[in-house]
Amino acid sequence: MEKFFNPRSVAVIGASNSPFNLGATICNILKHIDFKGSVYAINRKGESIGDTPGFSSVLEVAEKIDLAVVIIAAKHVQDTIRECGEKGIKNIIIQSAGFAEGGPDGEALQKELDEASRHYGIRYMGPNCLGVLNTHSKFCCFFGIVPGMYDDVFEKTGSVSYIIQSGGVGALVIDSLQAEVSKINKVVSIGNKADIDEADLVDYFKDDNSSVIGMFLENVQCGRKLFEKAKEVDKPILVYKVGRTSEGAKAAMSHTAGMANNDAIFDSACRQAGMIRLNSISELYSLPKMFTSMPPLRGKRIAVFTNSGAFGGIAADFIISSGLEMASLSDETVNKLHKTGQLFNASNPIDVGPGLSKQAFIDIFDILLSSGEIDGLLPIPNVWQDVVIDSIVEIVKLCRAYKKPAAIYIPNAPERIISIKNDRQIPVFESPEEAVRALEVSHRYHNHLLKKELLAWQKYYRERAKEERTLYRNMNQSMSLRPQAL
Amino acid sequence: MEKFFNPRSVAVIGASNSPFNLGATICNILKHIDFKGSVYAINRKGESIGDTPGFSSVLEVAEKIDLAVVIIAAKHVQDTIRECGEKGIKNIIIQSAGFAEGGPDGEALQKELDEASRHYGIRYMGPNCLGVLNTHSKFCCFFGIVPGMYDDVFEKTGSVSYIIQSGGVGALVIDSLQAEVSKINKVVSIGNKADIDEADLVDYFKDDNSSVIGMFLENVQCGRKLFEKAKEVDKPILVYKVGRTSEGAKAAMSHTAGMANNDAIFDSACRQAGMIRLNSISELYSLPKMFTSMPPLRGKRIAVFTNSGAFGGIAADFIISSGLEMASLSDETVNKLHKTGQLFNASNPIDVGPGLSKQAFIDIFDILLSSGEIDGLLPIPNVWQDVVIDSIVEIVKLCRAYKKPAAIYIPNAPERIISIKNDRQIPVFESPEEAVRALEVSHRYHNHLLKKELLAWQKYYRERAKEERTLYRNMNQSMSLRPQAL
Repeated sequence: MEKFFNPRSVAVIGASNSPFNLGATICNILKHIDFKGSVYAINRKGESIGDTPGFSSVLEVAEKIDLAVVIIAAKHVQDTIRECGEKGIKNIIIQSAGFAEGGPDGEALQKELDEASRHYGIRYMGPNCLGVLNTHSKFCCFFGIVPGMYDDVFEKTGSVSYIIQSGGVGALVIDSLQAEVSKINKVVSIGNKADIDEADLVDYFKDDNSSVIGMFLENVQCGRKLFEKAKEVDKPILVYKVGRTSEGAKAAMSHTAGMANNDAIFDSACRQAGMIRLNSISELYSLPKMFTSMPPLRGKRIAVFTNSGAFGGIAADFIISSGLEMASLSDETVNKLHKTGQLFNASNPIDVGPGLSKQAFIDIFDILLSSGEIDGLLPIPNVWQDVVIDSIVEIVKLCRAYKKPAAIYIPNAPERIISIKNDRQIPVFESPEEAVRALEVSHRYHNHLLKKELLAWQKYYRERAKEERTLYRNMNQSMSLRPQAL
Repeated sequence: MEKFFNPRSVAVIGASNSPFNLGATICNILKHIDFKGSVYAINRKGESIGDTPGFSSVLEVAEKIDLAVVIIAAKHVQDTIRECGEKGIKNIIIQSAGFAEGGPDGEALQKELDEASRHYGIRYMGPNCLGVLNTHSKFCCFFGIVPGMYDDVFEKTGSVSYIIQSGGVGALVIDSLQAEVSKINKVVSIGNKADIDEADLVDYFKDDNSSVIGMFLENVQCGRKLFEKAKEVDKPILVYKVGRTSEGAKAAMSHTAGMANNDAIFDSACRQAGMIRLNSISELYSLPKMFTSMPPLRGKRIAVFTNSGAFGGIAADFIISSGLEMASLSDETVNKLHKTGQLFNASNPIDVGPGLSKQAFIDIFDILLSSGEIDGLLPIPNVWQDVVIDSIVEIVKLCRAYKKPAAIYIPNAPERIISIKNDRQIPVFESPEEAVRALEVSHRYHNHLLKKELLAWQKYYRERAKEERTLYRNMNQSMSLRPQAL
């Protein structure tokens, strides 16, 4: 699997100098992002593309090739696969569309593909996919990327990896993450996933440098395999799956040729495997920051804190509806809070009014986080002065020190929030429901890990107990044997 | 009520040259936006603020004053009210905080306020509010606005009016609407609403130049009055109310001193009165455009249309979950669609693939809208080329011509969507769930109007029938009388 993400040599089959050629865009983007491996353009004429040397077949390339990216008409794909097999290429990304998603003819083509690849021991991604983007190794075989478009993605690398069945959703996630504090590690677009599927990738991401795994699925190839692999992973897995309704499932089927799955079963299996099912595709890029930049939410008691009164009530509604609790503050804590400045209200939600100094903000965070009366914070700072942004930066530090999380919602216009996120690189949310959802998901994942740990300990003790019993039985037996031997 | 929104002369009581004086910001903003009426600053020293003439009491102003805006310490407010009463001012906006929301002392002050205003026949807004912003008459008594901050708001006037109980939410709505195609008519921040409440304002907006009414409420002063007034209004009323949970209601109480209301009762009363209850504060600014820029959704059959396959399935899930239906297209329509270009899929959802021309887009819209097989559209155009934006502009025109609505969702990053909205002034949504919600709400409001009309006709016929019966009875009586008379 490693060769899909970190190839040392790549052949782009179908890259030529014809106008609008998509393969050429792959050669160009690899050049542009300064990919360190060797790249070969394969086309009928054997022509080079800029600095990328061209050949008419992979068989003509002298070097060993780790990975072939295939972007030619569907009907020619199987011949190409055979050539790759002869060359000894074991990893292929088939980007061409026109297979099982396109009806019976395509299905037949896909069958031939499977036979050819099985014959040569080839593992492949796709067809009908974009393949792989790896920010750390600066490798990307997504077609159609204009040099310059994703510069930031490769410069600001991160730890969130995505398995995405659709190019459109992949592009949306990559674009949207640019404003977020969580950055991208790897993105895989798996299309029809006739060979390599989401379960194989979950298994790969289990041990790599990813800290959060996001998935967009239109269908699940083999549910049992996915959930078994997911259970072994100790990283949050966030999954959006199309097909909650039969109409949605039908639409997804025509797009990437999957089977409709029973949604209720998928839902309960997710819960058992500790996978977090998402309600909205925006959660694919808004939620990871809760895991990458904040400690987990260990309990349910949340303190809400705002300089803009009405949002306290709004947030309290969402907190209670989500199953979390409004922390109840002791008189001691309330008194301490009152001493920090001119608070309008020191019981939860805490309404600090406008015009507080940065130190007053910090004092309030400190009182709450050290009180032992809360498990997490929902700060809602209306950013009307720079001092408020500075205070948000401090709260991120304090949360890490106290090992309690904050989901920060800035109640300003989306445009303003995005500019703050870009400028200051702080983990903030764009709506109260999104912030509460982040707390809920953090807590749920924490509980999943606890339960898993508990089960592991139970298993350990059961095994120890079994061992001891055996030992004891053996001892008894040898004790009872001894007299006879005497 | 008109004098609150279109005063010819205004006294700002508490506006002075002291540093950070909030009243002064009102004088300045009125100057900046070129308010046509006269403005007087009232302060102890009687000093002028820039060009705004100053007096030490309203009694010293020679001109008749339509409206007083009071922004002084709570304990001095009642004396000021008496002075206003002596001057003959009948409309007052009390911005000062420290009344019923602040505990027993404040409650006593509010009581005195009520007595004084009743004595002089004064109607007042607040206390603890911002008052009125009217884009058309260029009047605004919100304190704390920096000249330049809201220039666009007053230049690009609109038809959406808001009743908002919180300054913070008001600011969020005003800021967020700047990127929307629906613009602001009036905003009223009503705070504790000890006198004028939301029902009075709904009644006022019933007959003014508003086309949509948005409300943010922390509590309802008099439910029966509100719902009676709302029933008489033939404009969509969108309402977000805090307090779905008891914790939320408690928090709201401490903010603007309201009573907790039974949420389930509020919910069902909204439905009966045709008010649309919102799930998120962002709906306050995202939904109005569905009413101001699109015809109503008359039926449930929706066609989804995308150039980015996966979003078809995502949208179908939301459509079915919302109670709407995926339109079923006839073979004839599907064939026509296939002729327009290289479609990936011509059944609903329609997947057009990338690279379509503007004319092909228009042809597809036209085939769908003229088919008689759909009631509304959910176009999901991924904007990777300008031709796609140009096509969106065309769909807005076609929808108006065919009297069928489209809720357009652009599946690009929020930053990109906002810039498209700003540049092209088109009604687009930022998530599939938001677009489906807009269709759902449009249809629900349409049904409400139909039902209302039906009830009106039933009433009319019942009355006609009653009249006829009476007439007939009288005729019979006179007929039966006649022989006796003969």
